[in-house]
Formats: sequence, C-alpha cells, structure tokens
Amino acid sequence: MENFKYENQTKIIFGKGTENDVGSLVKEYGSNVLLHYGGGSIKRTGLHARVVKSLKAAGVNIFELGGVVPNPRLSLVYEGIEIVRENKIDFILAVGGGSVIDSAKAIGIGALYPGDVWDFFTRKAKVEATIPVGVILTIPAAGSESSTSSVITKEEGWYKRAVGSPVMRPKFAIMNPELTLTLTQYQTACGIADMLSHVFERYFTNTKHVDYTDELCEATMRSIIKHALMVTNNPNDYNVRSEIMWEATMAHNGLLGVGREEDWASHAIEHELSGIYDIAHGAGLAIVFPAWMKYVYNHDKDRFVRFANKVFGVSVEVDMDKTINKGIEELENFFEKIGLKTKLKDVKIDRLRFEEIAKKATESGPIGRFVKLTEKDVLEILNLAYE
Amino acid sequence: MENFKYENQTKIIFGKGTENDVGSLVKEYGSNVLLHYGGGSIKRTGLHARVVKSLKAAGVNIFELGGVVPNPRLSLVYEGIEIVRENKIDFILAVGGGSVIDSAKAIGIGALYPGDVWDFFTRKAKVEATIPVGVILTIPAAGSESSTSSVITKEEGWYKRAVGSPVMRPKFAIMNPELTLTLTQYQTACGIADMLSHVFERYFTNTKHVDYTDELCEATMRSIIKHALMVTNNPNDYNVRSEIMWEATMAHNGLLGVGREEDWASHAIEHELSGIYDIAHGAGLAIVFPAWMKYVYNHDKDRFVRFANKVFGVSVEVDMDKTINKGIEELENFFEKIGLKTKLKDVKIDRLRFEEIAKKATESGPIGRFVKLTEKDVLEILNLAYE
Repeated sequence: MENFKYENQTKIIFGKGTENDVGSLVKEYGSNVLLHYGGGSIKRTGLHARVVKSLKAAGVNIFELGGVVPNPRLSLVYEGIEIVRENKIDFILAVGGGSVIDSAKAIGIGALYPGDVWDFFTRKAKVEATIPVGVILTIPAAGSESSTSSVITKEEGWYKRAVGSPVMRPKFAIMNPELTLTLTQYQTACGIADMLSHVFERYFTNTKHVDYTDELCEATMRSIIKHALMVTNNPNDYNVRSEIMWEATMAHNGLLGVGREEDWASHAIEHELSGIYDIAHGAGLAIVFPAWMKYVYNHDKDRFVRFANKVFGVSVEVDMDKTINKGIEELENFFEKIGLKTKLKDVKIDRLRFEEIAKKATESGPIGRFVKLTEKDVLEILNLAYE
Repeated sequence: MENFKYENQTKIIFGKGTENDVGSLVKEYGSNVLLHYGGGSIKRTGLHARVVKSLKAAGVNIFELGGVVPNPRLSLVYEGIEIVRENKIDFILAVGGGSVIDSAKAIGIGALYPGDVWDFFTRKAKVEATIPVGVILTIPAAGSESSTSSVITKEEGWYKRAVGSPVMRPKFAIMNPELTLTLTQYQTACGIADMLSHVFERYFTNTKHVDYTDELCEATMRSIIKHALMVTNNPNDYNVRSEIMWEATMAHNGLLGVGREEDWASHAIEHELSGIYDIAHGAGLAIVFPAWMKYVYNHDKDRFVRFANKVFGVSVEVDMDKTINKGIEELENFFEKIGLKTKLKDVKIDRLRFEEIAKKATESGPIGRFVKLTEKDVLEILNLAYE
C-alpha cells in the first residue's frame, strides 16, 4: 500500500424529500446564491420551484444561470464567472448531474482567479481556493457531487480537460433518489457506465498489497452491475434507484483509490471522443474500456483473471487468456443488455480522425499508469474499439 | 434504504513516517496542546520524543497528561478538563489507541461544558461543541480515530457508557502502520474482534434494500478475517498491518451503516462486562457476539445464512439452522485461532453477577434494534456465553 491522505468534507443528505432542506443548508455559507442548472427539465418536474421556495424561505438572494449541456462548455463557465463577480455571489448551487456540477466547480474556482480559468485545465495555474459549491443531484453517474474534480470542454479546438483539487469538493450533496425515477433508460445506462468506469480506473493498478480496497472495488462493481440490470426492468423502483445513487458517489469519492496508483487512460481517450463527437461520456466509456482491457491485459493477467472471476463469476480456467476474454465479453454483454453500444462504428464514429485523436490524447506525454500508453498505443485501442 | 446524513471531517494521513508531520497539523488548530497518552509505551518506543520534536518545531506549547488505561476512566477525564481550563489549551492530541482517543474526546467536550461531563453519558446534556482533537493512532481496533463517539468508565458503580456527536470526530488521524508492528498478538487479536464487531453491529439489520452496504460489510469482514490470520503468522509484515489499520477505520467511520438501522446490543452487554471485570473490550466482544448470534438468529435466518456463506464460505444447505450454526462455529474457531476465548468461564468470569449485569444493561429499557432485548434476554445470552 502507498502512503495516502484522504479528506472529504462533503456533507451527504440522502433520501426522500431532502431537496426541501436546501435553503437552510445554503444559508450556512452565503446569502447571494447562483442557481446553476441545465436544459430546463428541473422546471418541468417542479424541482426548480421547490428549490426556489426553500431558498427564498431562508432569505437567500437568487441569481440564475441555466443552459449547461452534457460535456459542459467553457463559454458558459465564463458567463457564470461574470455573474458571480458582478453580483458578489458567495455560493453556487448546482442542480443537476455531473455536467452542471462540473460547470459550477469551474465557475467557483474561476471567480476567485484573476487570470483565465482555462489555465487550471492546462496546468498553467494551480487551484488554491473556490467560491463554495453545493449540489442537488439528479443523475447518478459522474460522482462529481463528492469528488475533487471538474471536466470542461473548450469549444475552440474541442479540448475536453480535467482539473482537480481538494478544495473543489462540494460542501454538501443533497441526494434524493426520487429525482432519478424520471431518467430515461439511456441516461441511466450512461450513468452506470460512468460509475463503473470510475471503479475500473482504480481497480487496475500496479500497487501491491491493496487486498482490502480490491475487495471494496469488487463489491462496488458487482453491486452496480446487479442494480443496473434490476433498474432496466424496474425503472420506477425507489429502492434500486437508491442503491445506484449511492454506488455512484462511493465509486468516485476517492475511498476506493486510497493507497493505490490509479490509471485514468481510458478516461483520457474517451474525453477526446466526447470532446470531438459530443457523445455522452458514459456511452464513450462503454466502448473504450473493453478495448483498453483487450490491449493491456497481458501486463497483469492475474488481475484480469480475478476481475473476470470476482465481478462476473467467470470460472477460472487453466487457460488464463480464455478466462480473461470471457470476463471482457461479459462486460460487453452487460453494456449491451442495458442498452449501450460497445463499438465505435455503432455510434457512427468512423476511423477518419483516429490519428488526430491519438495525437491529441497524448500531447502532454504518455497516458495511464497501469500501462503507459503512447500515441501508437492509443491508435491501436481505437482500432480495437472500432468494430 | 432509510434516509441518512453522512459527514466525516477527519483528515486521514496514512503511511510510513507520517507522525513527523504532526506539528504543522496541530498548528492549524491551536498553539497550546494537551498531549494525551497511556502507560508510557510511547516513551519506550521513541514515539513520544518524535512527537514532541515535531510539535516544538512548529512552535506549539505542550502540556502532558499520560496514564490512560484500557476502559478509560472518568477520573482522568476530570483531571484533563482541569488542565485544559487552567492552561487555555486549544487542541488535544491523543497518541495511542481507542482508550486514549475516547479519553481525549471526553476531555474535549467536558472542557467547554459548565456542568459535569458525565451528564453527556447519561443523556442529561447534549454535546454541542468540543475543543478540537487530533490523533496519532497506535492500535487499530476501536475506530475512534474517525468516529463520532467516546466510551468512558465511571469508577463509582463501574458504569461504562458511550456518548456520540458529529462534532466529536477528530480533526485528523495520523495512521502509521509501522507503529503497530510492536503490538502483541493479544493486543492485535482484541483489536480484530473489536473492528469485526463494529461491522456486525451494522450488518445485522432489519432495514431492507441495503444490498450495496451489505456487500461492503461482507468485503470488510472477509478482509479483516483474512488479514487477522495472516498477521498472526507474520506480525512484522508492514503490508498486512496496513490493511488491518485501514479496515479498523472503515469498520467504524460510519460508511458501512449509512441508510441502515444498526443494532449495538452486544456492545451494550460487553460494556457491562468490561466495566465490571475490566477485561479488554475486544476480548469481551469475542465472547458476547457468538452467544448473541445463537440467541437471535431465528429472527432472520436468511441474513444469518448469507453471513455464514459470504463471510466464512459455508455452503448453503437445505437445513438453514445447520448452515447458520456452522457459520457461528466458524466465527468461534476464528477467534480461537487468533488467540481469543469464546466462553466467559475461560476468562474467569463466573455466573454470580449475571443477574446484576442483565439488569444494568437494560436499566434504560430494552437494548438492540435487530432484536430488542429485555433483561431476561440478556440473561439468556450471558448463560449461552458462559460455557
């Protein structure tokens, strides 16, 4: 096990009706709040009205900025920063999924930084402080409600880049599974692929003697898979939605990665895909991960045999490759079962820009830690992912 | 799943050499620190000298109070409160195991309360604030380094009682597994029984639809058992000590209990035993828990079958009682293997005071939530635990 530090300040408020407590929670941190959200579904469902009511009852001044899209854009972040500065906003409330939260986090760090907020994403500047952010979560997927990171897409050149800092963890996350009952199967499935991938990035490690976190990762993967299949048949089941919502948070609050080297190459590759083609992040991960696994598994066959066995119940055969490939096949079958594609050609992405994508993904050097991937490696993985 | 709130402010600093950072950590909170510890083993090992050096380098004024014993005493807590008040101490640093940390927590809440600190333990008063507490952990067991609670023994009448509040979580926990290499097998085993019991108290629940936390509990129990057997053979293995140290924290930081009703009857019974007979808490739990399981398993046979199967790999037979009893037997065998007793008579506790213990344990009403236990029930469990 490696030395580690772990700290998580996010207060979780989980369960039915919890969004009605938002006013008093926000009031602890500020009195001028930026209410940040997406395309307006929160207005249709009545959530927006309930939130505004609670905030007003707490005596908080409300400023609004909607319009966050999946793969959230830098231009809207700039807009948010302006609003925060002009109105002396002291708290940002994100109501939505990972995109809205990531956008709120970027506004929060950008508002206190005199330069261009994009500097944080290109490593020109380091995050030191933020306007506090709180969350009402509506999509279990990204884990951003309790994570240290934000991923933003810069339209100029379609760069999708991440930044992280412990100060960026939200102050609170209100998580009411009832709010997720209206998600479509496709939204749900993309979320499932995202949370599962967050565990993969931590599970495939070169660090030895991390048995306990291995067990926790496996428990999390098995549970996500089990509940994903259940929710596909029973989308209105509050109990299953609850399990999934909490799994998404645990998958990315950092606890499954303590003391371990993590990978993150597949996320880097997927970010190039969704940056350019604007596909859903989870949909992209369901395609990239099986291909990544096929390409790297020789590096540590024992771990991939364990994965096949412990997560998918594949019986361990003498032929390790057979066991491993069975495991990867089970993963692909699982993604297909919940309605995701596992090949690039099936989401209408052709081979034309593979070289450009491989180059862009590795422009700051090789990616990944389990296996370090060069431009050539990424190209091979894209080819494996094609059909 | 039940609605829940979860917040854990404890900053974990885990790994080799981490105790040398204590000075700068303490300095974030205060400049007059009470260094609180046990019987002096930290002086023999050189830990005391390293801590003092780091604190002095950070410019912190040091006051000392040693002498904490297992089942920590109220009289020493009173002494600590006096020292804190007289010297305007603004931070308490606990260097030791659960007893030292619990004593520090009690001093912390008592110093800010004008009445008798024991009021908190009898529910006459509610904890609202505390002098901040930090920890350098030397025994993985109680999980107090990141928990909300403290257990103190009042010598007058030998009452052992607990109090808890979110404000009581330590600000930081420095966890260097190297410091645990010198623990005896008996100390290690008592710690193992303690952490395992913290999972039992959460695992045996009436709450439905908590599959994911069930899986996490099972992963934690399997890991503790596996590593306990490994450390028994290799007490000097840093890697195994690391796993155990982290398991102890996770077992009691609250994450394994979110959204679930918890039990805690076995702890209540054991507190009476160790309050009166001054046996080690873990040693008492290794005796009480198997007896409790035998007494209550009819309440939910499915759960006990699952426990036997998932935790001890007992094959599921048509005869549920057989499977369940095999699981409990495996638990007893495990405790014996690591050097603990599983019968009261083997730790020289006779039947003479069983009625008094049963009465005292239930003096505020029935205990436990999985099954509510009356005085009569507790007496039956004590009889089952005897031989």
